[in-house]
Amino acid sequence: MAVTLAQLAELTGSTVRGDAAAEVAGVAALHNARPGDLALAADPRYAALVARTAASALVVGAAFDASATPLPLLVAAEPVAAFERIAERLCPASPAPEPGIHPAAVVAPDADLGPGVSIGPHCVVEAGAAIGAGTVLRPLTFVGRDARIGRDCLLHPLVAVLDRCLVGDRVVLHSGVVIGADGYGYETRDGVHHKLPQRGIVEIGDDVEIGANSTVDRARFGRTVVGAGTKIDNLVMVAHNVVVGEHSLLVAQCGLAGSAVLGHHVTVAAQAGVIGHIEVGDGAIVGAQAGVLRSVPPGQVVLGSPAQEIGKERHCLVLHQKLPELLQRIRQLTRAVAELSEKVVRLEARATEHSEPH
Amino acid sequence: MAVTLAQLAELTGSTVRGDAAAEVAGVAALHNARPGDLALAADPRYAALVARTAASALVVGAAFDASATPLPLLVAAEPVAAFERIAERLCPASPAPEPGIHPAAVVAPDADLGPGVSIGPHCVVEAGAAIGAGTVLRPLTFVGRDARIGRDCLLHPLVAVLDRCLVGDRVVLHSGVVIGADGYGYETRDGVHHKLPQRGIVEIGDDVEIGANSTVDRARFGRTVVGAGTKIDNLVMVAHNVVVGEHSLLVAQCGLAGSAVLGHHVTVAAQAGVIGHIEVGDGAIVGAQAGVLRSVPPGQVVLGSPAQEIGKERHCLVLHQKLPELLQRIRQLTRAVAELSEKVVRLEARATEHSEPH
Amino acid sequence: MAVTLAQLAELTGSTVRGDAAAEVAGVAALHNARPGDLALAADPRYAALVARTAASALVVGAAFDASATPLPLLVAAEPVAAFERIAERLCPASPAPEPGIHPAAVVAPDADLGPGVSIGPHCVVEAGAAIGAGTVLRPLTFVGRDARIGRDCLLHPLVAVLDRCLVGDRVVLHSGVVIGADGYGYETRDGVHHKLPQRGIVEIGDDVEIGANSTVDRARFGRTVVGAGTKIDNLVMVAHNVVVGEHSLLVAQCGLAGSAVLGHHVTVAAQAGVIGHIEVGDGAIVGAQAGVLRSVPPGQVVLGSPAQEIGKERHCLVLHQKLPELLQRIRQLTRAVAELSEKVVRLEARATEHSEPH
Repeated sequence: MAVTLAQLAELTGSTVRGDAAAEVAGVAALHNARPGDLALAADPRYAALVARTAASALVVGAAFDASATPLPLLVAAEPVAAFERIAERLCPASPAPEPGIHPAAVVAPDADLGPGVSIGPHCVVEAGAAIGAGTVLRPLTFVGRDARIGRDCLLHPLVAVLDRCLVGDRVVLHSGVVIGADGYGYETRDGVHHKLPQRGIVEIGDDVEIGANSTVDRARFGRTVVGAGTKIDNLVMVAHNVVVGEHSLLVAQCGLAGSAVLGHHVTVAAQAGVIGHIEVGDGAIVGAQAGVLRSVPPGQVVLGSPAQEIGKERHCLVLHQKLPELLQRIRQLTRAVAELSEKVVRLEARATEHSEPH
Repeated sequence: MAVTLAQLAELTGSTVRGDAAAEVAGVAALHNARPGDLALAADPRYAALVARTAASALVVGAAFDASATPLPLLVAAEPVAAFERIAERLCPASPAPEPGIHPAAVVAPDADLGPGVSIGPHCVVEAGAAIGAGTVLRPLTFVGRDARIGRDCLLHPLVAVLDRCLVGDRVVLHSGVVIGADGYGYETRDGVHHKLPQRGIVEIGDDVEIGANSTVDRARFGRTVVGAGTKIDNLVMVAHNVVVGEHSLLVAQCGLAGSAVLGHHVTVAAQAGVIGHIEVGDGAIVGAQAGVLRSVPPGQVVLGSPAQEIGKERHCLVLHQKLPELLQRIRQLTRAVAELSEKVVRLEARATEHSEPH
Repeated sequence: MAVTLAQLAELTGSTVRGDAAAEVAGVAALHNARPGDLALAADPRYAALVARTAASALVVGAAFDASATPLPLLVAAEPVAAFERIAERLCPASPAPEPGIHPAAVVAPDADLGPGVSIGPHCVVEAGAAIGAGTVLRPLTFVGRDARIGRDCLLHPLVAVLDRCLVGDRVVLHSGVVIGADGYGYETRDGVHHKLPQRGIVEIGDDVEIGANSTVDRARFGRTVVGAGTKIDNLVMVAHNVVVGEHSLLVAQCGLAGSAVLGHHVTVAAQAGVIGHIEVGDGAIVGAQAGVLRSVPPGQVVLGSPAQEIGKERHCLVLHQKLPELLQRIRQLTRAVAELSEKVVRLEARATEHSEPH
């Protein structure tokens, strides 16, 4: 699969600087490229990485300082676009699975399958489920009773979409995603936790993508909602009755507690948590590892646990790291005040002497 | 499936205020109801939600101020119970799967299956495993060699109960749960980590429920224990040799390190962590995102990382957010002390002058 | 399966103190042993546990104070080794699965299977995949198109290794592990997040072990790398283009963001997070729940969020818990300065009086 830089120059309309017969077989990032890889060096901030990359050739822009490396270069007007073009050539996407139902899948006779649906081996599609045209269920995937999956979705291996849940069009669910497990709700009587039935559903909007091993729980009643265009990373927890607006981002390992309501274009960064029954307004950003205990107004950026406005929290975090200095200053002040105090006592004594009648 | 308020009033012994012919087709929470939904407005704190809900009708108590909304109302003596009754009618539970072994399941000939067991397609039950009467294995679930599952359990799709683990009666395991993966234990010699065999098991008590994608690791020797009646949320990590007492609550994304011992009626809130080899006493509560590094006495509530008694930590957190103010006060004090110091120097100089012999 | 202490003494070359005919049937830890269990009491720090263990007998060293317990003892020169020998006898490992392909597995005709491979029921191995000699795929495991698994690996039930990913020799993947889900990368134009193709792979080195429900995402281009000998705990997130060096440890629920680069012998403790595009040097340790925002030099130990050198952070954490005291000291200083100030004003007034011409 190796190709010469000359071939890649022709593919991308770029020019070679150095050995045009040099061959590459793959693409990689500067920091973990190996001999035989072509890497992208479009960003001048990565100069240090350029100096020590193990790549065999680089894609660069016209402004690149060629003296920075002995490697052969592919000089492109738009290096990112050229690199992506080459990456597509060298790392072709996996071919789409053939439409049809694999004989080792178990599909209920009354399931409603659109044209061009592909159902892989060992999938299970239960009674009353519907799967839209062009949707692919990779192997070992489960679609429960009366669930509905839209058109042109891609469900990776080992996904579960449980009973009655609704998934929009062009949704991508990665391996291990669980849509519609029961919400975590109990009524405690005499120290015993009695399960509250979780009778609602999950509704996933169009163009949502959900990362590996993330979970979206079904509502107690009604629906847990993930709005259209929202992208969820791996190992994220969305609890029952949560509403996530459109085009939001939930980054890895963050969690939203029950009945939290997020607006559109909200970002919740990695490992952050949002408590239940509050609102995070449109365009708000919750920083990594934050713990949000109160509603966040639209557009606000918050950080910390408990979270506050990011500028304030950053100031507090700087001072947290300066606590030893603050303590020093308090000690110095204490000493200075003690010394002053003694001096004042002496001055008062003298003043009293002086003012005593002679 | 739409029903009139009049019909629901009859079902629940409540009275209609407004249009008794109004129809609803589902139930939902106030904050994400849609037209056609019936919502519960039992809690006066949700007045703001009542004002802007999209629901078509509300279930309320006798004390509800009917002027707060133009919607038709179902007025019930016990509105929560009435709502739940209606929810059961409008969101019927999925029918229980038929007893029997699906032909696409692979069940070892010597597996011991109680009466009424239901094993879905693509399940695997290995040699020597036992499954109690009335237990349901939904599709794609794995029960390992010599594992024992009690009576009337529900294992959702894509659950793994690994070899020799023991699961009590009436246990619910949600999709992606892994019971009995190896504990994380290595002996490091010359920089190389050698696996310590993990030969123990996991023992899950009666009436436990475990949420999606949570993991309970097998003990190195002996057993990792989750006590009867304990409820575990999604994406929770219970490490090897941990003991969780009865009727405890482990909320989403929390983690318990190896050999931690929790009493009964303990709560570990979301995203908190408990270090290994310590005890958390009966009835103790670990706050969200806390990091518990020392044993917690029974009944104590702790917060923070490292965790301390919640009252103290709350005070510290308030002061953390006031660090900029504290710095200001230290600066003011520093200035005030410097000014005083100068004044005292001047006073001392003057006093010396005066006391000099004339 | 019960054995007498006399038999175990013979097995391990140790001596019995107390009733040599006493029987045990299993091994367990002191803190959760039950009658019939043999427990290890090698560490004098566990004296309190010895006093209240429910075990029926103990393995101890020569220095153990026999008056500390009425239980029969097995006294061994090397108690840990003796205990492990007994544990192997009482908790035998599960027998290795038979080599061969289960008839309920679906294996592509062109998959390249080494000698002695075992593929369990309901596994799926796609076209072009290769599986090395002696490797075991337990039931319900997925190996994608053109993926390559090395020799003598163990893939537990419900694992997914996605297309083109590479797994070394002697690798253990626990249930729910996902290798090669798409990285979380989008380009946002006009508020809409467009997926960036994730065309790279994951490369897992030899002797790696990965815990239940952990995820390692494929690179955008090139490869995400987990170095040989690295051990990953449960529910860990390794994002796209990350490089983890050899013999590192990633503890439960920690996360590494995109393009983070970790050296060899790095430890990232539980629930910690490492931001993307930074380096964590060889031998560095990231403490539990830390949030690493800057590169960490080799060998450094860091803690806190944001993380700093552990000694500094520990000092800051102590002072965080003393913030109420610091506030008290500031208040006292403020009062003292105010009093001094008044005194100085009085002294100045007096001094002015005195210095006035008589």
